[in-house]
Amino acid sequence: MFKRGFLQNCVQIAFEQRIVKQCQRNIYSTSKMADKFKLPNRYGTGEKSVWVEYIQFAAEHKPAVNLGQGFPDFHVPKHITQALADVVTSDNPLLNQYTRGFGHMRLVNNLSALYSKLIGREIDALNEIVVGCGAYECLYCAILGHVDKGDEVIVIEPFFDCYEPMIRQAGGTPKFIALQPKNDGHNISSADWVLDEAKLKSLFNEKTKMIILNTPHNPLGKVFTQKEIELIADLCKKHNVLCLSDEVYEWMVYEPNKHIRIASLPGMWERTITVGSAGKTFSVTGWKTGWAYGPATLMKNVQVVHQNCVYTFNTPVQEAVARSFEFELARYDSPDCYFYSLAQELTPKRDYLVKILKENGFNPTLPEGGYFIIADWKKLENKINLNDQPEKYKDFRFTKKFAKESGVLAIPPSAFYSEEHKQLGENYARFCFIKKDENLALTEKLIKEWYTKGL
Amino acid sequence: MFKRGFLQNCVQIAFEQRIVKQCQRNIYSTSKMADKFKLPNRYGTGEKSVWVEYIQFAAEHKPAVNLGQGFPDFHVPKHITQALADVVTSDNPLLNQYTRGFGHMRLVNNLSALYSKLIGREIDALNEIVVGCGAYECLYCAILGHVDKGDEVIVIEPFFDCYEPMIRQAGGTPKFIALQPKNDGHNISSADWVLDEAKLKSLFNEKTKMIILNTPHNPLGKVFTQKEIELIADLCKKHNVLCLSDEVYEWMVYEPNKHIRIASLPGMWERTITVGSAGKTFSVTGWKTGWAYGPATLMKNVQVVHQNCVYTFNTPVQEAVARSFEFELARYDSPDCYFYSLAQELTPKRDYLVKILKENGFNPTLPEGGYFIIADWKKLENKINLNDQPEKYKDFRFTKKFAKESGVLAIPPSAFYSEEHKQLGENYARFCFIKKDENLALTEKLIKEWYTKGL
Repeated sequence: MFKRGFLQNCVQIAFEQRIVKQCQRNIYSTSKMADKFKLPNRYGTGEKSVWVEYIQFAAEHKPAVNLGQGFPDFHVPKHITQALADVVTSDNPLLNQYTRGFGHMRLVNNLSALYSKLIGREIDALNEIVVGCGAYECLYCAILGHVDKGDEVIVIEPFFDCYEPMIRQAGGTPKFIALQPKNDGHNISSADWVLDEAKLKSLFNEKTKMIILNTPHNPLGKVFTQKEIELIADLCKKHNVLCLSDEVYEWMVYEPNKHIRIASLPGMWERTITVGSAGKTFSVTGWKTGWAYGPATLMKNVQVVHQNCVYTFNTPVQEAVARSFEFELARYDSPDCYFYSLAQELTPKRDYLVKILKENGFNPTLPEGGYFIIADWKKLENKINLNDQPEKYKDFRFTKKFAKESGVLAIPPSAFYSEEHKQLGENYARFCFIKKDENLALTEKLIKEWYTKGL
Repeated sequence: MFKRGFLQNCVQIAFEQRIVKQCQRNIYSTSKMADKFKLPNRYGTGEKSVWVEYIQFAAEHKPAVNLGQGFPDFHVPKHITQALADVVTSDNPLLNQYTRGFGHMRLVNNLSALYSKLIGREIDALNEIVVGCGAYECLYCAILGHVDKGDEVIVIEPFFDCYEPMIRQAGGTPKFIALQPKNDGHNISSADWVLDEAKLKSLFNEKTKMIILNTPHNPLGKVFTQKEIELIADLCKKHNVLCLSDEVYEWMVYEPNKHIRIASLPGMWERTITVGSAGKTFSVTGWKTGWAYGPATLMKNVQVVHQNCVYTFNTPVQEAVARSFEFELARYDSPDCYFYSLAQELTPKRDYLVKILKENGFNPTLPEGGYFIIADWKKLENKINLNDQPEKYKDFRFTKKFAKESGVLAIPPSAFYSEEHKQLGENYARFCFIKKDENLALTEKLIKEWYTKGL
């Protein structure tokens, strides 16, 4: 039909020429057609997410160091990647074919074994766990499977930006409450970012269906304390509210902090869906493997949404994640276990990036968990001209201009606030520190050069 | 915290004991709680799909041959699986991390090159293609991205069972029209299953937002002819209707039939979203990689739904599928190209299974495409007691009882009909023939033994 020369040419041309092409061609013959095929209202205006915008920006401007998206730029332990290579090339052809929709058996059995112990009750692998296309899809299924028209969902700001559109497309109304710093002095830590207890209590009412908790927290790095989690748990029980607990950074907790799983608190299992991630746990964000666990009657609703949007997830990847769990569980009591060794490996990276930021005019919040640092840049405002940036919010202008001038790309935190609270994030930038040491050293060099240029 | 012995024990116990465990534990402390956390109405009663039921049945009854789900039980070409093994263990750590949300660049560039030529226009890799978690998620995004309250969607029966709940959760109303056999004699082919033209025309009205076409068709194997596709295209243009064309079996077309892509017809590109599948194209259904392509303004809506439910799909799998495409495109003009060689390989399997079924009391429809055979079993009704099966529909009773008695599992086609038309599928069973020859030979032996036992 057509020759290989043509095709390879096409691939080549496409790769070279189209990568930054943004044009939206007007391909409609009639405006009547465009009207009819507009996006349904439940999706609002269908705005592109901050991720689409910043991945695009990175492709266009090629910053020397990208500390934007949260993923490591170094090799993960070989047993994890080798497991996937072994699975796909194994003697068993069925490992490349469809598996059980709600989760590959070997994986849900491992998840059951691990979380049964961590939560302190036997978790049924078949009815109390669902594996999905990333924690992202699991959050989607938990929200869409429960939130309906008229329901309110309490969302703690700043928040992982997907929560809000998921709630709105389900017909729910998000009710926002912001973590705010008790002080803005130096040596601020993520523990200093707290909720106003009276304000939190005031948000619970008979319309409240759900609260979304995220601990360790993205982007602040806050590890909620026992007392803070007990307050949320008590309010959930008092008002009969479901807690959706996003714990994808559960293993990235820095000493002396401890990760508390709200599902393990008295009376909370029956009203909690917890979400975890192989991408974060094993540093393979590109594997897009996540899970949700909780009581069967809540998980049944998660199953229905999952069954109707993706039905099942990749088989060899699930088998490889299962084998990786088995490998780590076999050395669970050793400091070599990746669940602990990763946090050990990340601690000096965190401290190094905090130091770099402090020495160069930023005021960073020391994170207790996760792999992001929120840094206040308002003292740098006189060193950068943001007037020629067209973006609406100052942090979008700052992060883009700063990337163009210094070569270091960060993410604007106002993306993690509701429309009415965007200003709370505008003075900050989010930096990711799960990067190889040479890139952190390059970050230091670039930021210092930028900072000292005007001195 | 806990010892490896405990964990491994847990995994073992879970694996052995829970696999067929069905109990739904009543974990609610109050019925008030259960009421509050019921499934939102848009999901109806949240019925388990036929796949969940039959995978469960297969796990419990372990049929000797499972001709139920559509996937090969033999090894796929080594270059495909080796590509994934190479990617995950490559020198580039970023191939295990997040990629572009709407599709990994190397993959969308290859898809653009291939389909640009097949459709006869240049397809923009960035704005006219979305890669998702299987064709399934792409169908979901195309439907949810367009169908709204009050919209009607025309669905041709029998249909891949996910279409209906996807339409309903979007607030749309499916309008069904069945392909019906022109005769029920012997030597029936899928070409004999046709739509009533007057009935089809009568379904188009000002509320019609979309029609879903599936060619080659699952489960009938029908490859819609140029004339049939032109009729649908003309109605779409006349009534300003979007065509969602599910073409996942595009390469499984048996001589002398030809697959026609409706998007290539005059005036149809601008109103067609076409869905394809790496799982079907490369015989790796477990990889769950699919795509949708169409004009940018329609694809923008697909992007929004995708961005809000999974955001991005697995990176190494997308890279491996891209490399597999490059491998096949380089030998596109050779009969060794998998796009053609697979259909050649499947033709004798199709003919063999048709012969087995004909010789043993079934009346199979010879499929022109796909890898399923619909077979009428009503002449076998006197050889099987269905009264002790509790299922509502006869084909569910037949396929389960037949599997228990013969060891051969098939899928009940009434699952592919609307509630009001279930009876049209009740006399049939769907058999999959993409199975290794020894399993088809075993199928012959088992069906013959079952059939001749009562003679």
